[in-house]
This record gives sequence, C-alpha cells and structure tokens, in this order.
Amino acid sequence: MNGAESLLRTLADAGVEVCFSNPGTTELHLVGALDTTPGMRSVLGLFEGVVTGAADGYARIAGKPAATLLHLGPGLGHGLSNLHNARRANSPIVNIVGDHPTYHKPFDPPLESDIETVARSLRGPVRRPENAAGVRHDAVSTLAEALEPPGQIATLIMPADVSWSDGVAADSGGDRPEARPRPAPAVNPAAIERIAEVLRGGEQTALVIGGPVGRAAGLRAASRIADGTGARVFLETYSSRVEHGGGLPWFPRLGFYPDQVLGQLHGARHVIVAGTTVPVAFFAYPDKPSCLVPDGAQTHVLAEVGQDAVGALTALADLVAPGQEPTVTEPGRPPMPAGALTVETWPAVIGALLPEHAIVVDETISSGIGVPVATAGAPRHDVLAMCGGAMGEGLPLAVGAAVAAPDRPVIALEADGCAIYTISALWTQAREGLNVTNVILNNRSYAILREEWHHLGAGSSNPHTNKLLDLSGPDIDFVGLARAFGVPASRATTAEEFAEQFSRAVTEPGPHLIEVIIPPTA
Amino acid sequence: MNGAESLLRTLADAGVEVCFSNPGTTELHLVGALDTTPGMRSVLGLFEGVVTGAADGYARIAGKPAATLLHLGPGLGHGLSNLHNARRANSPIVNIVGDHPTYHKPFDPPLESDIETVARSLRGPVRRPENAAGVRHDAVSTLAEALEPPGQIATLIMPADVSWSDGVAADSGGDRPEARPRPAPAVNPAAIERIAEVLRGGEQTALVIGGPVGRAAGLRAASRIADGTGARVFLETYSSRVEHGGGLPWFPRLGFYPDQVLGQLHGARHVIVAGTTVPVAFFAYPDKPSCLVPDGAQTHVLAEVGQDAVGALTALADLVAPGQEPTVTEPGRPPMPAGALTVETWPAVIGALLPEHAIVVDETISSGIGVPVATAGAPRHDVLAMCGGAMGEGLPLAVGAAVAAPDRPVIALEADGCAIYTISALWTQAREGLNVTNVILNNRSYAILREEWHHLGAGSSNPHTNKLLDLSGPDIDFVGLARAFGVPASRATTAEEFAEQFSRAVTEPGPHLIEVIIPPTA
Repeated sequence: MNGAESLLRTLADAGVEVCFSNPGTTELHLVGALDTTPGMRSVLGLFEGVVTGAADGYARIAGKPAATLLHLGPGLGHGLSNLHNARRANSPIVNIVGDHPTYHKPFDPPLESDIETVARSLRGPVRRPENAAGVRHDAVSTLAEALEPPGQIATLIMPADVSWSDGVAADSGGDRPEARPRPAPAVNPAAIERIAEVLRGGEQTALVIGGPVGRAAGLRAASRIADGTGARVFLETYSSRVEHGGGLPWFPRLGFYPDQVLGQLHGARHVIVAGTTVPVAFFAYPDKPSCLVPDGAQTHVLAEVGQDAVGALTALADLVAPGQEPTVTEPGRPPMPAGALTVETWPAVIGALLPEHAIVVDETISSGIGVPVATAGAPRHDVLAMCGGAMGEGLPLAVGAAVAAPDRPVIALEADGCAIYTISALWTQAREGLNVTNVILNNRSYAILREEWHHLGAGSSNPHTNKLLDLSGPDIDFVGLARAFGVPASRATTAEEFAEQFSRAVTEPGPHLIEVIIPPTA
Repeated sequence: MNGAESLLRTLADAGVEVCFSNPGTTELHLVGALDTTPGMRSVLGLFEGVVTGAADGYARIAGKPAATLLHLGPGLGHGLSNLHNARRANSPIVNIVGDHPTYHKPFDPPLESDIETVARSLRGPVRRPENAAGVRHDAVSTLAEALEPPGQIATLIMPADVSWSDGVAADSGGDRPEARPRPAPAVNPAAIERIAEVLRGGEQTALVIGGPVGRAAGLRAASRIADGTGARVFLETYSSRVEHGGGLPWFPRLGFYPDQVLGQLHGARHVIVAGTTVPVAFFAYPDKPSCLVPDGAQTHVLAEVGQDAVGALTALADLVAPGQEPTVTEPGRPPMPAGALTVETWPAVIGALLPEHAIVVDETISSGIGVPVATAGAPRHDVLAMCGGAMGEGLPLAVGAAVAAPDRPVIALEADGCAIYTISALWTQAREGLNVTNVILNNRSYAILREEWHHLGAGSSNPHTNKLLDLSGPDIDFVGLARAFGVPASRATTAEEFAEQFSRAVTEPGPHLIEVIIPPTA
C-alpha cells in the first residue's frame, strides 16, 4: 500500500465517500488510488472552483465532509474563492493538495509555489506528511480537525513521493475516526438564564438566528420565544442551510444594506444572537456604521458560532415560553403569474411549482429578493445561500448538494454574472447525471453593482453606461453554454414559458438549464 | 480628487494604459475613476483568471505592465493561478485589490479575508495605503517595484475608504515614474571572459538560453557562438516570448521529461546558462534526478534571470566568434497536409498558413509537439508559452497580447482541458473585438496526464478508462461555447476543413474559434 492508498483508505474507512477532483501530474498516484479504494467516489470538475464549491454543497447537505483533490498551489488558488465561501458556511472540508516531492522543491521547478501560505489564509489547519508511514496519522488528524465545530477547512499537502512510496501497513491500529461532526459544546445554563431574564424584562428585543438554528428545531424554538415574549425574530442575511416552506415557522431575513438592518432592528433595547454573529454591514459605506446593533441596544450572545445554539434556544424557549407552540406558515402557493418575467413574477413561478423535498441553491443576488416570500408556503425544502459573498458558488453548490442527496430535486437559482465564474459545473452535472434544474436570471448586467453604486455615491459617471458593469455586448447565451456542456436547456421570456419549462425540468432526470430573461433591477 | 482617482491618474501619467478588471462593491470608486481617467482603458473579464492572464500576455508584448482590478481576497484567489504563471514569465503586473475600509475589517464581515498573505505567496511586494494622501506614493512605489528586473507581481491593496476619501492634490510633486522597465544590470566582463575560456577549451558544451535571449538579438548571439565554437544551443522548455520563423536562428527546446533533457545534454562537459535557470525536471519521477545537468558536467551561469543576458551573450559571441555571422532558417512553409487531423498534421496547417507578424500563444500541452518545427520557416512571429505550468492561461494570454498589439493577428493554440478553466476569455475577446484565432485541440482527454501516468508508473488501474482523465461523456462542444460567448466558430475534422477555416479566421476582423478534433495522443 502506497501513501496515496493509505490516505484514501483511511478517509474511506472513516466514512468520507466522495472526492471532488481536478488532478494533475503530482496527484496521479492519488488518482490511481481513487480508482481502487472501495467506497470512495471521485467526481471530476474541470475547474477547481467547481471542486471546492461542490465540497461545500456536499457538506451542507450530507452533514459530513467530502475530500477535494487539487493540483499544487495554482489548483488551490483556483479553488480558494469557494473555500472562502465554505469557511463562511462553516462547512467541513478535507482538501488534498498534491505537491512536488520535498527533495524536488529546492530546485524551484515551474509549478513550485507556497501552498502552505495560501492554505493558511483559510485559517484552518495545514498538514504535510513527511513519509508514507505518517500519512494515516495526518489523515486522521486532518479529518478530525475538519470536523471541529462548527466545521473547518483542513488541508493535507501530499508530496508526490509520499503518495508513491510504500508505507508500513497503513490501516493497522490507532484511532478509527468517523466522518461525523462532534457534538457542539453546550451553552452554560446560567448564561441561558441571564438571557431569559432579559426577555422577561419586557423591553423590546430582537432575536437574530442563524447557522444550525435555521433548521426546523431551531426555527420552532425561535417561534415559541417570539410568541411567548413578543421578541421579533430575524434570520441572518445569508445562511448555510435553512429549512423553509409550509408547516415551518417563517422569519424575515436581515437585509443586505445597513439602513435596512437598522430599520429592522429599530427600537430594540436588546439584540440576542444565536448560532450566528452580531449583525455587521456586508460592505462599508461612507457615514454608515459597521456594527448594525442600534445605538443604546445591548447585545447578548446566547450561543456563539460552534456552540450548541439549537439546544440553547430550546432551553431558552422552555424557560420563557413553556407550553407555547410555534407558529407555522400555512402550506400554500402563490397564484401562477402570467405575462412578463420580472423580479416580482419569476419567483412566483418557483413558489407555484417547487417540487416536494427540494434543495434550493440561491445565488440570485439582486434578482432574487422575492424568493423567500414566494416560497414560504411551498412544500418544505432546504435553502443554501452564499455565506462568504464571493460570486460563483451557486452551480458548484448544486453539484455537491445533488451528489449528497441523489433522490432530491436541486434547484439552482443563479444570477448571470455569478454563473460565469464556474460555468463548467454544468459539465459535471451532465457527466454525473445530477438532478439539478439551473435557473439563470439573465439581466445582462452586474445589477448589484449598479445598485451599490447609488448606495456608495461612487462617482459622477453613469453606472448604467459603465462598461465594467454591463454584461451585454455581446449578450451571453446561457442556453448555448448549457448545451455545449451537455445539459438540455431552454429560454423563457414569459411566465407561461418559464412555468412549462420548469415543470418539465424538475420531472425529467438529469440536469436542465432554463435561461430566464429579466429586465435589469437597478 | 479621491484616492481612487489619485491611484489611476498616477498610473496613467506614468504610462500604464490598460486595467484588466473584474470589480465588486469595494472597487466601485475605482470603477468610477477608470471611467474618468484619461489614457486608461478598462477591459472587463468575467472571471479573475482571465484578468490576470491577460495582464501577463499584455506585459509580454507591450513590454510594460498593465494594472488588474480584483475584488478582495476571493478575487485575488481566482486570479492567483495565472499570477503564478505571470511570475514565472517574469511579467511585470500592478495588481489593485480592493478591500474593506480598515475600520470595517475588525467586524469580520463575510468577505473579510487575508489578502496580504495570499498576495505575498507571489513573492512580490504588497502595499496598502493608509489614506488617500498616501496613495500616490504607494502607486509610484508599486509601479517601480513591478518594473524591477526581471519583472515582479506587485500588489496594491486599496481599502474602500482610501478610494472614496479626498486626498491632497495627488499628482503634485514627487517622482514622476515611467512604466518602462529599468535596464537589467550588466554582467561583469570578467565573468564573461571566464566562460569564453571554457568555450575556447574545446570540450563539449551545451548553451541553454531563455528569457530575453529568446528575442532576435539573443538568438543571433547564440547562433554565432554555436557556429564559432561548436557548442550546442537549446532553448528553455517554456519561454515567456520567443521570436521564431524564417530568417531567425532556430534551436531545439529542451524536452519536458527528464530523460529527454538528459539525452539532449548527453556528453556535455559544460552547461552554460543565459537568461534562464539551470535545467530542472518539470515534475519529479521515481528514480529520476531533479537537476538535469549531466553527471560530471560543470554548470556556468553567464547571466542570471534579471541580468542583461542578451548583452552578456553578445559580448561572449564577440569574444569567441568575432566576425561570425549567425545561421538562420530559410523562409519556407511545410506542404499543406490532406486528410485526417492528427498531432502530426494539424501543426503543418498552421505552418502553411501562419499570417505575417503573428503572435502565437501555445498552450497545446501534449498535442502541440510538432508546432515549433512546422513553423520554423513561417513568417517571423512571437511565441508565448506557459511558463508556470498552471493550466488555463492560453485564452487570457491571447486577450492581453491582442490588447497590446491590435494590429497583429493573435493565434491561440489551446488544449481542450486547458481551455475550460478560463473559457469566458472568449467573451472578452468578443466584447473588445480582438483579432484572436482560437484553435482548440480537442482530444477529449487530459492526454498529458495519461502520458504522465506511464512515466510515473502511477498504479495498476488503466489511465485510459480512468474517469478523472477523460473529458468525454459528455463531449464538450467548443463551437457551441464560443458562439454562446459571441465568438464565431467552426469545427474541423480534416486538414482541408482546418485550412479553409483558419485562412478565413485570420483575415476576418475580430475573434474566431476553430475546434480541431484530433485523436488522443497517449
């Protein structure tokens, strides 16, 4: 057994089932080992951002890490943006980055680069086994570190000679790790009691929830607290995974702009935070605050990110709202719209037709503001949002979610500008036969940047004539792109066309793409 | 004048003419300033790897740096792979990376990341002005650092508040930099004389040239030395820019594999290196050496990378071959092939039809081995190769080269696997109306990795059935991709079709793409 086999068998034995891969020469022994390791599936991405974004989507749905396989520093670089997003989503990932043999590096060959430094920018652990005998230990440690709550990006750098060298019997003895997150540490009951006192005090209170509290149990606890105390509940702006739809409590999300959040939290004397961070402006604007807790309000952190926020919130609900039942949304769908597709009407088509048990990936940016309300009564589904703010994760997230849950329909709602960064994710969807319906909202502009222009007062020139914010000239043909990557595709210019195409796409197996032509929003 | 305007005017005043851009919110004041800065052209890329690869191609042809505009750490990450390639090509580049205001960063908003650490992995200088008044100084310094021989990747991080704040009169006083490389330091004449002595000694000698020696003056000096002393001359494997074609001296390139290079250098008692590094294996292989200088041979560095290698080689030629004229290739083209397109025949079509004064970008990997010989007598042209070994630079390089030299035809010879990483470069070609003929060699596999598999002995499974090395299923339709991005395209399956399509593409203005279907090579 060589080092490459030792690594992949150790991970597979622990329950890691998938390796999203874009290999090169230094990873070929790992490619060979992937072919022969029972229980390990390899999924090829044609670009590393697809690989890393897919690992994020997989982790969010499977609740355990996938591995990635990346080619030296440049491969890690291409994957870095979506690893940033994964870090912000607290998704556990085990990166395997191939490298030159240690003895070869001092010769500074063309692909030599500083992998450690780049990997460390992700603030997760970085390991480099010195020999094949040490691989198993480092694999076990890397997996354990990835699984540390709330989830880490852990990187294992595999020198090629470590991959190709014979090691000692690699799976004998030692810990047998499991690819299952450790329980998050519980919150001190005294801290929960102190926050219960705040709620009993009767002053205006806002409760901001996120992270694991976005799942059903957390939403129910939040609803009980709201109903029992009058606290207003808000969901963090961008969540890793939220359960949504009829029969579940529904809460508004905090807005994107500082003034929106300050308006939402206006009047609150207390802001309680559970499972997420204190509200902060996504971007800074001249003369706007960074921290969005209203002046004079006190902040109370019920559960830090990584702590057992659902347990703490449930305990809090038992203290302040014993016997209280949660309020849930009635199942129901919006009426099917007709005529032109706009930012108001296209989400209603989704709300009217969303299939049972769907996973919705939302990278709609400026075009998707109507989606949460339009789908609030739809059949229960999961929503995966972009947590790190780096564009280009939606299509890869859909890949990973569909690999993790092959029986669930995945709907990727995707802005045109975002889609292009990682467009070859469509090819991986086609190769793997993934049940993904990609909906591309094409407004032929970086509309969010035109909107931001006004918020920033960015200059005297006109954002609508600025070539850097315009995606027309030439117009991008997403139908053509999809077909070229092997994905059946169609274009919708009316609600009726969109409804017909969407209904078909979600019932046929394999991926589909629908290009929805909408007017610019800003 | 705000900080953004101060930065762009300082660069434009110095002669920086182009900013390849993929901006986000933190760069909007820079977007505004790009719109109003005389003499500065902005070129949009839909992915940051297009932006950074284009800046590399621009620098190689224009001989001076372009700026890039990137969005925080994730944008730099997406651009990192082609910045690695640019670093290996010794291309000067001024990266402008937007960031949150300094006061906003401690709140750890979603897009906060460690930009400095990632930028420093490129081994170039990194600056961050503290206020708008300091922008001009940092811009001048960054530009000067980028221009330090042999060329650096210099990064300027612009906090958004520095961009939007009013500074002092920004272009008053101080140095007036010029975007022109400083002369490379001369080699000590005594060192040249010592190497002349080696050549006069009459022992078998190999001369390995690269970097600036790949241009006409260097090639002529190398030829004189070869003819005057019997030394064998080799070009480095991958050069930033080589002048090639009829009327110029021609030398074989060092091979990719260690055994090839050791065979080429076999028997040499001395290896002289000028303008490049001592030959090193691109990748390591079990039981193969890293350093490819034959055992027992002495290495003599005539000029380090960054020194005036052309001057040193010319002085050496004057010492050892006074009065000797260089040997040049006869102008002439290979006969036009007929029938099937193979790795032998497709390069002959290029050789037969290459237009005058072309720039050839070569990212053909395993499919392009016949190109240098097929084009050796073609009209004089420049060849830009991939110096850093990270796939996905060819199409962006073509963008940058075409922006730098709008009157020259650019021919991008591109492997299928490489093309996908940065495929949206086609859109930028279309938007800017660039005269690029993209030739995609489609063998539907990562053929180089199948070849490498055999060299590495990577495992018992079959590389030809390994899904991670196979790009079929589904086949990628490059004609469809090109048209979807606004580039006219066609497919060639015979030499006759390729010849007809290529002839048309190079005469019509604007970009074209030809998908050449070839059998796998390995």
